[in-house]
Amino acid sequence: MSTFHVTLGAAAATLAAALVTTPVLADDMSDYVAMFEPLPHIPPIPEGATQSPERIELGRMLFFEPRISASGVISCATCHNPALGWTDRIPRGTGHEGQIGDRNTPTVLNSGFLEAQFWDGREDDLEGQALGPIQASIEMNMTLDQAISRLNEFEVYQEAFAEAFPGDNDPVTPRNVALAIAAFERTLNTPNSPFDRFLMGDRDALDDQQQEGMRLFVDNGCIACHSGPILSDSQFHRFELPGSTDEGRFLVTGDDVDRFAFRTPTLRNVALTYPYFNNGSVDNLKDAVNLMGQQMLGHEFEADELESIVAFLDSLTGEMPHIEVPVLP
Amino acid sequence: MSTFHVTLGAAAATLAAALVTTPVLADDMSDYVAMFEPLPHIPPIPEGATQSPERIELGRMLFFEPRISASGVISCATCHNPALGWTDRIPRGTGHEGQIGDRNTPTVLNSGFLEAQFWDGREDDLEGQALGPIQASIEMNMTLDQAISRLNEFEVYQEAFAEAFPGDNDPVTPRNVALAIAAFERTLNTPNSPFDRFLMGDRDALDDQQQEGMRLFVDNGCIACHSGPILSDSQFHRFELPGSTDEGRFLVTGDDVDRFAFRTPTLRNVALTYPYFNNGSVDNLKDAVNLMGQQMLGHEFEADELESIVAFLDSLTGEMPHIEVPVLP
Repeated sequence: MSTFHVTLGAAAATLAAALVTTPVLADDMSDYVAMFEPLPHIPPIPEGATQSPERIELGRMLFFEPRISASGVISCATCHNPALGWTDRIPRGTGHEGQIGDRNTPTVLNSGFLEAQFWDGREDDLEGQALGPIQASIEMNMTLDQAISRLNEFEVYQEAFAEAFPGDNDPVTPRNVALAIAAFERTLNTPNSPFDRFLMGDRDALDDQQQEGMRLFVDNGCIACHSGPILSDSQFHRFELPGSTDEGRFLVTGDDVDRFAFRTPTLRNVALTYPYFNNGSVDNLKDAVNLMGQQMLGHEFEADELESIVAFLDSLTGEMPHIEVPVLP
Repeated sequence: MSTFHVTLGAAAATLAAALVTTPVLADDMSDYVAMFEPLPHIPPIPEGATQSPERIELGRMLFFEPRISASGVISCATCHNPALGWTDRIPRGTGHEGQIGDRNTPTVLNSGFLEAQFWDGREDDLEGQALGPIQASIEMNMTLDQAISRLNEFEVYQEAFAEAFPGDNDPVTPRNVALAIAAFERTLNTPNSPFDRFLMGDRDALDDQQQEGMRLFVDNGCIACHSGPILSDSQFHRFELPGSTDEGRFLVTGDDVDRFAFRTPTLRNVALTYPYFNNGSVDNLKDAVNLMGQQMLGHEFEADELESIVAFLDSLTGEMPHIEVPVLP
C-alpha cells in the first residue's frame, strides 16, 4: 500500500477528491437497493375489475357521499380523510353517533397493493372492503338496500352508474358500488418518494442517516415482513401489543395460530399515518419502531439506530394524489 | 307615423328582421334587470380583516381541520361540505356524537356578503361566526383553549399562524383562528351564474321560462327581502313555518317583534342548498316557493308560476370554487 501511495499519489489524490463529492455511502448501498422495489403508479387490477374513467369518477363521488350513511354526514372520506393521509389520525375509527371502533383506521393510500384488506384480512380486495364500513353499525350504519335506494333517488347517480357499467340493465347495485369505489381507490397511490427516487438511481435522494436507516431496516430483519413495493407482505403475524386484547386474525379463521395476528401494515407514508398499530395506541414512529424491535425482532435498538430508522421511514412519504372534492347531486 | 312608415319602409323591414333574431322578451326585461346586481367576485372586507394569501391558506387548513373537535373527526367541512354546496343537505346540522341541532346548516358560499350571520343574526360577520361551531356542545364540542392547545402541538400551524399574522408575538389565538377562517370563506363565492350573465348583457343566458320567473319574482314582491347581490337583505322577517317552534331572532334580542323572525337566506345556489327553511323541513324548491307565497305574500302561485320561479331560481347557481383539500400536519 505504501508503494501504491508513492507511485500513484497524484491519481489517489484525484480519486479521493472524487469520493468526497459523491455520497460516501452510495456504492455500499447497491445490495440494499436490490432488496426493495419502487412503487408502481398503479396497483395490479384484479380479474373482473376495470379502471375506466367513468368508474373512477363514480367511485370518487361515492367515496365522498355521506348520504349512504344513516346520519347523512359520514362518508368514506370521514375516516379516510384526504387531509390526513387518507386516514383519521385518531387512535380508533369514530363513526355513527360518535361510536368508537376497536381498531385504527388504515390509510387508503396504496391500499390496492395489499393482498389482504382490514387489519384481520377478512376481505381479499378493495371491492370486498368497500361495502364493510357502509353497513357497520358503528361506522355508516346503513343496509345496502337503503344505500342503493338512496342513490337511486338521484338521476345523476342513475346516469353515472349507467355510464360506468354500460352492460348492466340495472346498474345501481352493491357490487357496482364496490367496483366503482375500488376503481377510485386504485388511483390513490403515492409514487416518487425520496426512497423511490433513491431506488431508481438518485443517490442524493436519501441523506446519510436515511441510508443508515435503510441498512438497519434490512440487517435487522424488518424487511422480512415489510417487503415488496409497499413494504408489506400482506401476511399475518402475531404481535403482543401492550394493552390490546384484540385477537385479530383469529376472529376470522378461528385458528389458534392466528390469535393476536394482524396483517402487516404498509410502511408507505408511515410518517403521515400516525397513530400506530391495531388500536392506535402508539403516537409516534420512534416508539413504534422501538416496540417492533422488542416484539418482533427481540432486539433493543440504540437511540441513534432508532433515529436512523425513523429518518429512513420518513423517506417513504410519496407524492399525495391531487383529488378534488366532487360536486354531488 | 304613417308617413314615417311609407318613407322608411325598407329600413323598417330591416329593423323588423333584426328584432326577430333577438330574443323577443329581452327588451321587456331591462326594467327587471335594473333591479338586480351581479355577484362581485369578492365580498366587502370588514375593517380589521385582511385577505392575505397566508391567511387564506391558513384558513383553508383550519376549515378542514377535525382535530379542533372533541371527537377528532368533525371539521367545519363536515357540515359545510364542499361536495354538497358547502352545506350538508340534511334537515338539521348533525355534530358531536351524532347530536342533531335545531336548525338547518346555511351554506358558506357567498356568506361574506351577508351582514348578519346564523339564522338568528347573533353574529355580524364571518369572524364572529367562525368560533361558534367549534365550541357548541352539539357541534365540535371543544373549548377555544383546547383548540388553541391542539393547534400549538403542530409546528406547521405555529409557522402558518406566524406567517399569516406577522405582527403578532403569540399568533395562535382564537381571534386569529377566526380571522383566518373568515379570510378563506370570503374566497368561496359563486359568480357567473346564468342569472349574472343575463344581468351583464347575455340575453340568451336565461330562457323564456326563467325570464318569466324573474318577472314574477319582482312583480310579486319576493325581491322586497331577497334583494342585493346575494338576494338577501340580511334583515329579519317573521315567518310561521308549519311545525317549527323556533323563536328565532327573539332568542337573541328578547324583543317580541323578533319572535319567529329569521334572517333572509341568500338565494344564490338555492337549487343546491336543499332542504329549506330554519329547520330544513321542506325538501324541494317548488314547495318552498309555494310556502313563501302563502306566508310572506299572501298569494297562491299558479302551478305554471311556481315552475317559472323555480326555473329562475335554478339560474342562480354559479361557478363553484375549486378548493383542494389541504394536506394537514
